[in-house]
Amino acid sequence: MLDLRPVGYVIGLLVAALGVTMLAPLLSDLVAGNGHWPVFLEAAAVTILAGGLTSLACANGVTEGLSIRQTFLLTVLVWGALPFFGAIPFMIGASNLSFTNGFFEAMSGLTTTGATVLGGIEALPEGLKLWRGIMQWLGGIGIIVVAMVFLPELRVGGMQIFQAEAFDTMGKILPRATEIASRISVIYVGLTLACALAYNIAGMSGFDAMIHAMTTIATGGYANYDASFANLPPATHYVASVFMVLAALPFVRYVQMVAGTPQALWRDAQIRAFFAIVTLVILGMTLWVWVTTYDLREEGFRHALFNVVSIMTGTGYASADYMLWGSFAVTAFFFIGLIGGCAGSTACSIKVFRYQLLFTSIRVQIRRIHSPHGMFAPRYDGKPVSEDVLNSVMAFFVAFIVVMGLFTVGLSLTGESFITSVSGAAAALGNIGPGLGETIGPAGNYHALSDPAKWLLSAAMLIGRLEVLVVLTILTAKFWRA
Amino acid sequence: MLDLRPVGYVIGLLVAALGVTMLAPLLSDLVAGNGHWPVFLEAAAVTILAGGLTSLACANGVTEGLSIRQTFLLTVLVWGALPFFGAIPFMIGASNLSFTNGFFEAMSGLTTTGATVLGGIEALPEGLKLWRGIMQWLGGIGIIVVAMVFLPELRVGGMQIFQAEAFDTMGKILPRATEIASRISVIYVGLTLACALAYNIAGMSGFDAMIHAMTTIATGGYANYDASFANLPPATHYVASVFMVLAALPFVRYVQMVAGTPQALWRDAQIRAFFAIVTLVILGMTLWVWVTTYDLREEGFRHALFNVVSIMTGTGYASADYMLWGSFAVTAFFFIGLIGGCAGSTACSIKVFRYQLLFTSIRVQIRRIHSPHGMFAPRYDGKPVSEDVLNSVMAFFVAFIVVMGLFTVGLSLTGESFITSVSGAAAALGNIGPGLGETIGPAGNYHALSDPAKWLLSAAMLIGRLEVLVVLTILTAKFWRA
Ligand SMILES: [K+]
Ligand SMILES: [K+]
Repeated sequence: MLDLRPVGYVIGLLVAALGVTMLAPLLSDLVAGNGHWPVFLEAAAVTILAGGLTSLACANGVTEGLSIRQTFLLTVLVWGALPFFGAIPFMIGASNLSFTNGFFEAMSGLTTTGATVLGGIEALPEGLKLWRGIMQWLGGIGIIVVAMVFLPELRVGGMQIFQAEAFDTMGKILPRATEIASRISVIYVGLTLACALAYNIAGMSGFDAMIHAMTTIATGGYANYDASFANLPPATHYVASVFMVLAALPFVRYVQMVAGTPQALWRDAQIRAFFAIVTLVILGMTLWVWVTTYDLREEGFRHALFNVVSIMTGTGYASADYMLWGSFAVTAFFFIGLIGGCAGSTACSIKVFRYQLLFTSIRVQIRRIHSPHGMFAPRYDGKPVSEDVLNSVMAFFVAFIVVMGLFTVGLSLTGESFITSVSGAAAALGNIGPGLGETIGPAGNYHALSDPAKWLLSAAMLIGRLEVLVVLTILTAKFWRA
Repeated sequence: MLDLRPVGYVIGLLVAALGVTMLAPLLSDLVAGNGHWPVFLEAAAVTILAGGLTSLACANGVTEGLSIRQTFLLTVLVWGALPFFGAIPFMIGASNLSFTNGFFEAMSGLTTTGATVLGGIEALPEGLKLWRGIMQWLGGIGIIVVAMVFLPELRVGGMQIFQAEAFDTMGKILPRATEIASRISVIYVGLTLACALAYNIAGMSGFDAMIHAMTTIATGGYANYDASFANLPPATHYVASVFMVLAALPFVRYVQMVAGTPQALWRDAQIRAFFAIVTLVILGMTLWVWVTTYDLREEGFRHALFNVVSIMTGTGYASADYMLWGSFAVTAFFFIGLIGGCAGSTACSIKVFRYQLLFTSIRVQIRRIHSPHGMFAPRYDGKPVSEDVLNSVMAFFVAFIVVMGLFTVGLSLTGESFITSVSGAAAALGNIGPGLGETIGPAGNYHALSDPAKWLLSAAMLIGRLEVLVVLTILTAKFWRA
C-alpha cells in the first residue's frame, strides 16, 4: 500500500506556507489604505488552518525520505492542491471571481502560465495584484527546484542527462537537495531585485516594478495592466527582454558563475543553441515587421524583440497585438511558443535541449538507414548520450504532441474555434499564456471561455508544468498497483 | 562515386510506361468524339520519347540489382520526375493550366493526394478526367510496391517490422519482389473492378464508376465533380465508404486470404486497431452531427460515415461541407487525417501501426520511470518488438511533426492564413487532399493559392508519400559523400 501520510504532511506544510505568504498582500492593502486587507486575513487564516491541520493529521506517518511513488504524488498534488487556496482571495476579494475562474487564475499563476480571466486589472486593489505576482514567483522557484532535484531522479523526458551534471559540478561540494535549492533561491531573489531596480529606472512605479520583476523572473507573464506592456515606457520593453532571457537560462550556471566559473555559462550547448535560435527568430521577425508594419522604425525592432522573447521563453507578456502583423507572424508565434527556453530555468514548453536531442535521434536514424550495421555514439554537449536518454526525449515529444491534440479536440467540443482550441491547448500545456485569435490572443483574455474549457486548460497547465510524463505516470493503473 | 545510370535507366522505363498509359485517355477522347485526343497523342509522344532516350542513354551502366543508395534515389526521383510528364496533358489540353498548376495537379495525382487546382471538372473532356484517375491509380499501386518491397529493406520509420512478416508469410513461397508485386496487382485490379461495378449499380454512369473506382482504391480522392460526392446518389456514398476502408487495409492480407488463410485478415493487430478507431470516430461524429446539424436523420449518419472514412483513409472525397458542422467537427477532421490507414495499403499519413508502437514506447518509458532497473520486452501483434523499431517510429513521428511545422511556417510566409497553412501542410504531407478553412477546405480547392505555395505543397506531397525519412536521408550531405 502507498502510504499517503508523508505526502500529506509535506503538502500541508506547503499549503500553510502559502497561507503565510498571503500576509504580504495583506500588508500591501493596509499600506495602500484601500480597505481590502480583510480578504487576505480571511484567506490566510483558512489556508494556514487547512494546511496545518493536514500536516498534523499526517504527522504520525512521517518517515525519512520519500519513495519514488511518493515523490511523484507529492509533485502532482502540490500543484493540484495549492490553486484551491490561491483562488480564495480572487473569490472573496474585489475581483469577485467564481470558483472556476478563481481556480483557473491561481493555477495559471502557480504554473507560471499567465493566462488570465481578469479584466480591468488596473483598478484591482494592490493586494490582488501582488498576490498574482507572488503566486507566479513561488511557482517559478518551485519548478526550478523540482526540475533540478526531482525530475532528473525520476528520469522524466530526458531530464536524467542533467542528473549527473547537477550533482557532479556542484555535488561534490553540495550533495543535498536543500543546499541546491537554497543556492538557487539566492540567485532567484538576486535576479528579481535586479530586474525590479531596472524596471524602476526604466520608468515603472516601485510597486509595478516589483510585481513585474516577480512575473518576469518566473517567466510567468502576469502584468498589472489589461494591455500588458503595450502602454509601458519603451525602456521597460528592453529591460523585460533582457531579464526574460536571463530567466530562461539554466539557474545552475549562475550558481557556478557565482562560485567562480563563469565560463560554464557560455560553454553550455543548450545556452548556445537557445541564443542562436532566439537571435535568428528576432532578426527574422524584425525584418518581417519592418516590411509589413513598421517600416524600419525602432518600434518595429523593439516589438519583434519583446514579443519573440516573451513567447519563446514562455513568459507571455505582449507589447503589441501581433495578430495584426499578418499570417506569417501569427503562425511563427505558435511555433516559437513550442520551442521554449532552457531546462533548469523557469521556462516551460518542449525546451531547446530536447530539440537538440530530437535532431540527434533523427540523425542517428538516418545514419542507420545508410549503414544498417554501423555503430553510432551520439553526443550532447561533448558527452556521450545514452540511447535511453534519446528515447526518453522522443517519448516526451510524442506524449506532448498527442496530449496537445487531445486537449485541442476537448476544447473544440466546448465550442471554441479551431484556432482558439489548438493555440489554447499549446499555450496552456506549454505554460506560455496567450494563444492566437481574437478570443485568447495577445489582445484578448480567457474570461469569455466556458467553464469546461477553463477546467480543461487548468488541467493542461498542470500536466505541462510537470513535463507531461509525470502526470501520465500517475494516471497509469500500474502506478497504483505496484 | 554514385553511379546514376542504373537509376536513370529504370526511371526512363517508368516515364516511357507512363507515356504508354496516356493512350488510354487518347482512346477515351476518341470514343467520346470530343476532338481532344491530339493532346494525348502529343503528350504520349513526348513522354515515351523522353523516357526511351533516357533509358537508352543509361543502358550501358545497367547492373544486376541496385545498391541501397541507388534504391533511395530511384524512389525519390521516380516521384519527382513523373509529374513533369503527367502535367503535360493539363498544360496543353482543355484545362489549359500553367506549368505550376499542371505540376501540382500531376504530383497530387501520382502521390494520391487528390488536392486539385481544377474548377469546372464536369466540363472537362473525358480524357483529362480519365488521366487524373489513371495517375492516382498508378500512384496507388506504385506506393504499395514501394512500401512492401523497398521501405522495409530501407528500414524507414519502423517499416522494418513488416520485413520479416512479408517475407515470412509469403516469402518462403514467393521470395522475389516482382512476384509480390504481381500478386498484389491482381488484388488491386480485382478490387478496382468490384468497386466500379458497385458504383455502377449504385447509380453512377459507367465512365464515372470506373474513374471513381480508380481514385477510391488508390485512396486518391480525385472526383469528376467540383462538389466531389455531394451531388452523387446516396447509395454511392455507402459503396465508397466500404471500398475506401478496404483500400486502407494491408494488401498482403488479401493475398493471404486468396491463398486460403482469410483469418490473417482479422488477426492482424493493425487492422483491428484501425477498425476500432474508425468505428469510434464514426459513432462520435454521427452523434455530433445528429445533435448539431441533421437531427437523427439517415443523412447525418451517412455524411459522418463517408467523410470520416474519407479523411481517415486519406482519400479526401467530400459528401458535405463539414466546415459547417461546428468547431468540434473541423478540429476532429484535422486530427483524423493525421491518423491514417494501415501500412502496406494505399493510405498515407502517420498510420495506425505507428500510433500503436508510439503508445508502446510511452508505456515503456513510464514503466522505466516506475522501475528504473526493470527489463521490459515490448510486443506488437504478439511478437517482440526491438528497441530499434520503436526508435525508428518515434523518429518518424518527430520528423513528420517538425517537417509539418516547417511547411506550415513556409505557407504562412506566402500569405496564407494560419488555418490554411497548418491544414494545408497536414493535407499535403499526409497525402489527404482537402484542408480546413474556406480556401482549401472540403468545399474549396487549391486554385487560389500562390505559385510558391503550390510548389511548397508539391514538395510536401512528395516528402509525405515517401515516409518523410526517405527524402530527409537523401538531403543529408553524408548520403552523397559515402
Ligand atoms: K507564462
Ligand atoms: K488522398
